[in-house]
Parts: sequence; structure tokens; C-alpha cells
Amino acid sequence: MELWYTEQHTDDVRFSIKVDRELHSEQSKFQRIDILESKEFGKFFTLDGLMMVTEKDEFIYHDMIVHVPMATNPNIKKVLVIGAGDGGTVRELTRYKTIEKIDMVEIDERVVELCREYFPQTASQLDEERVNLFFEDGLKFVRNKENEYDLIIVDSTDPFGPGEGLFTKEFYGNCYKALTDDGILVNQHESPYYDYYARSMQSAHEKIVEFFPINRVYQAHIPTYPSGHWLFGFASKKYDPINDLNADAWNILGLKTKYYNTDLHVGCFALPNYVKELLGENIK
Amino acid sequence: MELWYTEQHTDDVRFSIKVDRELHSEQSKFQRIDILESKEFGKFFTLDGLMMVTEKDEFIYHDMIVHVPMATNPNIKKVLVIGAGDGGTVRELTRYKTIEKIDMVEIDERVVELCREYFPQTASQLDEERVNLFFEDGLKFVRNKENEYDLIIVDSTDPFGPGEGLFTKEFYGNCYKALTDDGILVNQHESPYYDYYARSMQSAHEKIVEFFPINRVYQAHIPTYPSGHWLFGFASKKYDPINDLNADAWNILGLKTKYYNTDLHVGCFALPNYVKELLGENIK
Repeated sequence: MELWYTEQHTDDVRFSIKVDRELHSEQSKFQRIDILESKEFGKFFTLDGLMMVTEKDEFIYHDMIVHVPMATNPNIKKVLVIGAGDGGTVRELTRYKTIEKIDMVEIDERVVELCREYFPQTASQLDEERVNLFFEDGLKFVRNKENEYDLIIVDSTDPFGPGEGLFTKEFYGNCYKALTDDGILVNQHESPYYDYYARSMQSAHEKIVEFFPINRVYQAHIPTYPSGHWLFGFASKKYDPINDLNADAWNILGLKTKYYNTDLHVGCFALPNYVKELLGENIK
Repeated sequence: MELWYTEQHTDDVRFSIKVDRELHSEQSKFQRIDILESKEFGKFFTLDGLMMVTEKDEFIYHDMIVHVPMATNPNIKKVLVIGAGDGGTVRELTRYKTIEKIDMVEIDERVVELCREYFPQTASQLDEERVNLFFEDGLKFVRNKENEYDLIIVDSTDPFGPGEGLFTKEFYGNCYKALTDDGILVNQHESPYYDYYARSMQSAHEKIVEFFPINRVYQAHIPTYPSGHWLFGFASKKYDPINDLNADAWNILGLKTKYYNTDLHVGCFALPNYVKELLGENIK
């Protein structure tokens, strides 16, 4: 018998992974959670059938969502993480001894419980003292926050299902309010390649730029996400991710990373023309 | 009825495209050629079942294989293209009025004939006066050339089947000899992500660095190739692709490109740490 997991990237495009076995499947209060094991990617899990995290390449996403803002402002002390139930984003953040507090707000406690059981690779640091877990709606959580975080990372699912509220104008406005005067907002920004995702990207981008004076988009190669061309949004009140990058300061920390480095930090903001056009940026 | 084209990216990973219809299929003297039509990618063709060119995203590959060397040395006058039967590489080259001669060596004349018929989008410039077509083995063609080309572009299939000879030490050595004193060799360099392709990449890289004093690798997002993370090799006798890039000179040409721009030119050489490790480069 052969078992294959298939994700429909568009109506006309499928990505399939041969699976050794299904380790767990359940319908939580919010979504369907499946945990699978494969030779090529190790263990991986999906939410409502969409790929979230694989053991093989989670380092790419987590490197890029954490080290880009941290290398831009090494004085970040208070961080809010929204989503990110697998724990990978928190794991990377805890490598910075200078961070004092990490609040993580995940709507679905079952994702965290299951990742603790099946993905120690990403969930290992969730019990650290600096980490506070909140199982509630991120959209509501940020409503009451003001001038509290130096960095907000939105590590959400796609803008449908439980993640939908995290792509609204109200949410981005509240993030702005919750950030300190030199705060940074980083969010997963979908893909530019297939129309469906590109429209989500454009819609998120248009809303964020209404609030923040500095807005940039950067890219990474994440082969298990649709098209493998994935974007992150970098919105900021003060720091520019390239002009303010202090590569020496970051390199002196001596963090070993499998994807991120400070040359790549600069390089990943250089977008293809068709992506710049989608974002409404002028093309040089 | 549904018709799906499936490429096996590894034994355990499949990429599938819904197909409207098959336009043509034949076994040439060298390989099986299939031409298909799809909604998502327009027309595309495969050689021995492997994706070569789609109407939707051929611009990415062709931008990156041509404009990176051309922007590094705008004085390139004589170019040798090996493989590239679809014509896309030649199309991009002919946009430079300063190029005097383009020799294109494609082993399989049927690929060119079929692309003329089905892919005018890429094959449109193959009849230009400056273009000379040779239907023979690229490996043999370069054996007799000395100090003749300013740029050699190896736009080959993967290193198995008819493309195999284009990944040998003998071939790279002959390319070195065929190049002028400031010559550049660019080749498609496979992907770093799946072991099978990564080994091809390493093997090609190890052989090329034995001949050329300057060796760099750059990357692009090509979603229809395995993993979507595709590499190109840049080997050179004199010009460094970053230090010698004259962005102003290139931008003044006014070429409209959908992927390439001179910021991306610099950015695409910033590789992830795991790729640098595979290439044996020290990690900063």
C-alpha cells in the first residue's frame, strides 16, 4: 500500500508527499489537525489539510521570521508572537538572551499540546521562563495592548478559517498601537506566484502600509509551501531592515543558523520585478 | 475526465499539473518530448517527463541565466549557448544590440522544430541574423574552440540522459579554453534542496572551480522546478558578478524585465547557510 498526502496549491496544481503513516488526526474546536510521518520531510503537520511545518525545512521559515527583525534591532526586549503553535518561532527567539519577555497567543491549544508531543524539535522552548502562553484569539488579545511590545510576529495560517482576523485592518491597527515607538511588525505574507495567494498578499500589504511609515517585503525559499516562493512583511515605526542592520553586532552573537545570515538579510529584500509590481512599488 | 501531468521530484514527492490536453508527443532520436496545455501554466513541454519550460514562468529562468552575466560585462560580443532548444535564452540575448554573434548548439533538432511551432513566445528570435544554430553535441562542439566567446551559457537538461556530458570535467575545461581572457561561463546548477539534485550541484561545482579563478552561485525562485529553489553557476576568468556590476550602465539600456533587476542581481548571490555548506563555502 502507498499513502500519499496531497495539498491542492491551486485548483490545477497539486503537491504530494509519500507518507509512512498517519500519527494523529483530530478535529479540534477550530480546525482539523493531522500529523504525518514521511521519509523525505520527517514528521509534518497540516491544519485543515494545508502544510504547516515539516521537520526537514521548518528552519527556513523560523530563521526568516525571527532573525530578520532581531538583527535589525538587537535591543528588542518584549515580543508578542501570534499563532505559531508549533513553537518554532519561540524557539528561535529564546536564543537571544537579551529578550526579557515573549508572549505567545495561539487560538488553538490542541496545536500546542500535539506539537509538544510530536514536535519536540520546534516546541522545545515553550516552557522557558520568559515565555507566557495565552490560548485565545490574537485579534482580541492585541485590542487591549498599548505601547507594550518591541516586536510583534504574526505567524498565522492563511487568511481563511481561524487565521482570517489576523489579516484585517483592525488587527494591523491594534498591532501598531501595541508596539512601542520603535516597534516592528513581521508577518507571514503569503506567496506572489499563484493568483489566489498573491491577492491575499496584496490585500495584507495594502492594509499594513496605512499604519506604518516603513514597509518592506522579503522572501525565502520554502519548498513545502505553495510555489516555494514565500514572502514576509516587515513593517516598522523607526527601523529600516537594511539601513539599520548591524551585521557585526548580530554576527558577534555567534548564533548558528542553517538558513539566515546577514548577507542573505540584505539580499532577501531584493524582490523580482513582478513581485514589486504586485506590491505597487516602483521598479528601478 | 481529468488529465494530470505528474513529475516525480523525488521518490517521495510529486508535483502535478492539471492538463487541458496533450498537444504533441514523440520519441526523438534523443529523448521523449511532450507538449501539454494547462490553465495555470499555459503551454509547457517536458523532456523525458521532466518539466522544461512553461509559458507562465519561463521569464524567471531566462532573465536570470542571461541578464546576470550581461549586466556584469556589458561588452560581451560573442556568445555560445549550449542546449536551450526552446529559444528563450537566445530571445533575451538578442535584446542586447551590442552582441554581435550568438552560436546556439542544441543536440536535438526536434526540440527546436517543435518550439518554433508551439512556443513562439520563446522561439521568436531564433531566426535573427546574429543567431547561428548548430544541431550537434555541445560537448563535441566546444572541443575545437579556443579564445572565441565572451560568454558561454549552458542551458542544459539535468545531468542524466542527453545532458550528461555537459556536467563533466572535460566539458568545463573545454569551455574555459573556448572563452576569451575575460570570459564568463553561466550554467544551470540544479537545486540544493533534495539530496539527489544537491549532489548534482555539488559535483558540477567541484569540477568548475578547478578551472576558473572566480566562482559564484546564485539563486532564483522557479516554482515549476523541483523544490522551486533553483541555482545557477557563475564562473569567470576576470569579472566578479557583484564587484563588477555596473547597475547604472544596465539600467540605462531600459530593458523591461519581469524578474531581473540590478538589486536582485546582488541579492541573488546571497545564499542560505545550508547551501553555502553544500558548496563548501565558509559561513560568515
